[in-house]
Amino acid sequence: MKIVCSKSDLLKSVNIVMKAVPSKTTMPILECILIDASANEIKLTSNDMELGIETKVTGDILEKGIIALDAKIFSEIIRKLPENDIVIETDAKLQATITCEKAKFNISGKSGEDFSYLPYVEKNDSIALSQFTLKEVIRQTIFSIAANENNKMMTGELFEINENELKVVSLDGHRISIRKIELKDTYGHKKVVVPGKTLTEVSKILSGEVEDEVRLFFTNNHIVFEFDQTTVVSRLIEGEYFRIEQMLSSDYETKVEINKKELLDCIDRATLLVKESDKKPIIIQISDDAMELKINSQIGSMDEEIDITKEGKDILIGFNPRFLIDSLRVIDDENVTLYLVNPKAPCFIKDEKETYIYLILPVNFTV
Amino acid sequence: MKIVCSKSDLLKSVNIVMKAVPSKTTMPILECILIDASANEIKLTSNDMELGIETKVTGDILEKGIIALDAKIFSEIIRKLPENDIVIETDAKLQATITCEKAKFNISGKSGEDFSYLPYVEKNDSIALSQFTLKEVIRQTIFSIAANENNKMMTGELFEINENELKVVSLDGHRISIRKIELKDTYGHKKVVVPGKTLTEVSKILSGEVEDEVRLFFTNNHIVFEFDQTTVVSRLIEGEYFRIEQMLSSDYETKVEINKKELLDCIDRATLLVKESDKKPIIIQISDDAMELKINSQIGSMDEEIDITKEGKDILIGFNPRFLIDSLRVIDDENVTLYLVNPKAPCFIKDEKETYIYLILPVNFTV
Repeated sequence: MKIVCSKSDLLKSVNIVMKAVPSKTTMPILECILIDASANEIKLTSNDMELGIETKVTGDILEKGIIALDAKIFSEIIRKLPENDIVIETDAKLQATITCEKAKFNISGKSGEDFSYLPYVEKNDSIALSQFTLKEVIRQTIFSIAANENNKMMTGELFEINENELKVVSLDGHRISIRKIELKDTYGHKKVVVPGKTLTEVSKILSGEVEDEVRLFFTNNHIVFEFDQTTVVSRLIEGEYFRIEQMLSSDYETKVEINKKELLDCIDRATLLVKESDKKPIIIQISDDAMELKINSQIGSMDEEIDITKEGKDILIGFNPRFLIDSLRVIDDENVTLYLVNPKAPCFIKDEKETYIYLILPVNFTV
Repeated sequence: MKIVCSKSDLLKSVNIVMKAVPSKTTMPILECILIDASANEIKLTSNDMELGIETKVTGDILEKGIIALDAKIFSEIIRKLPENDIVIETDAKLQATITCEKAKFNISGKSGEDFSYLPYVEKNDSIALSQFTLKEVIRQTIFSIAANENNKMMTGELFEINENELKVVSLDGHRISIRKIELKDTYGHKKVVVPGKTLTEVSKILSGEVEDEVRLFFTNNHIVFEFDQTTVVSRLIEGEYFRIEQMLSSDYETKVEINKKELLDCIDRATLLVKESDKKPIIIQISDDAMELKINSQIGSMDEEIDITKEGKDILIGFNPRFLIDSLRVIDDENVTLYLVNPKAPCFIKDEKETYIYLILPVNFTV
């Protein structure tokens, strides 16, 4: 194999496929990037068996071929080479020579035949949205998936399509995040659970531009993201997602409108009195025109008042401050509305059209 | 005590004194910042027994007093408060109330009497230079002090004053860094060894502006840095510094002029084939018009050629690539000159006036 690519094109593509290179694996071949120039285009592929990424690089093929190179070493070499054309040449003994200007690297490769190629996926059903929207919706929900694998379903996010609406849901047993997106076209009903890790890595590669499109394909076992020169294939989490409808209620006893930044800054300040390990709640007293927030810990105490517009009853309720912070951070509105029932019932933060709903369970506390 | 300061002024001062708060200590009082408003100015002080920092804050004293507050908590509270006036008030039970707009924090303090005040230092002998110059000279030498305490003297830097010259020296047994600075005035001879940690922390606080001055005072046991509103007092390392003159020679067999960036980038690339733990040298072959650099490791090999201007003999010599990188990074000249004798003798990188001299010992290697 002998190929020539510009450093910048090659580095961009290498950075993309690096997202699916596992940091620890018992299969050394998975620590490689496959360079496939066996046909008329140069493709880089990585695959950790859950998630696989393939991307095309612009360049010239002087001699067709295929090789797998250690991803970490290869990416570091490319990163540090001068901004010029890079030549990658391999011989029959799988030795790769990487040349750029007067610099010449020699590293050993592995046979492309040993590489674990991406699964073949029939791409029939697809939806289209902007890369900006997908990147945003991941950011706005990914924080409330569960980190540990005890309940596999909680480590993923529900992607549900109904006509021209995409609904994304994540939950971890203490809170639920829901975002609804209006699509340009209308599609048949689909409902899949996508691993959180896939979404995290995909969102790092997405350009985030409103004009750039991404297409999502669904099968029984896989989801495929196609955008720019890149294809991401991920397994789905199998099984039935949680029935969340029964947890959502539009009844409330107290409705509060409050400036988002004031509330977020106040809770953020309060958390510095709480160590990650101890579970001190922030206690919120809602009266007619003011919300009073208090926290008490071994380190000290804080209280602060924020002006609000209130409908309904007064209420005294406690929350894990982290959960409020996570939700408030991803809401872009200047003012937010909180709906509360009683100190044991979940609090809802949502907009009128319910394009977002954040449900947070309260915690017990002693005054 | 009751004082009022703007958040920005207070935060700036807190960040300065934080540099002398020890991260681990058996004396909890040292984890505090002392707020002293007992006279007509507000002073913050921290002290880890080796290094002490005092800085003045602009503000109003409504009630005189003094208190020691946990540095970490206090600094985090100040950082997270709104951009407005902050009131700090203490009571007879050493409870401190920190108020800003509607936010109110309560934390426990400690008596100022328990605090370990900075040593009293007679400030007679002093030299003046710009903060920019001091910050630069620390950056240009600090990397070649020894990290471990086996040889205490190597963990510090020599500051030697001869008439209108300040000479700063650091060495770690494998290399020596020397920088000479011309001072505006002429001073009596002084020679002290300043702990590396002191210099690292001082350089973080220095503004780095050419117009801002810093004064250095010397006593037998201490060095004092006075600048802006801040005084830093540090113990000196006791004993006689190494005699480096005998290691410096102006004889050479080979003199090479080379583009600094090309050389630095090339060595930097080579290091990615070397793990921190294994001590693979970079091998340099100097011929008439070119320097060839090679490295060989389990991971792979690299070679590269750079154009040079050479006087004297050809030479083949090996170096720890890290040592070359450290020195080249802090030299601002476009071209550098290397002076070599033989593969066992040190290499010198220096300018004609010897405002900088970097001596690096070569390493053995097998071809």
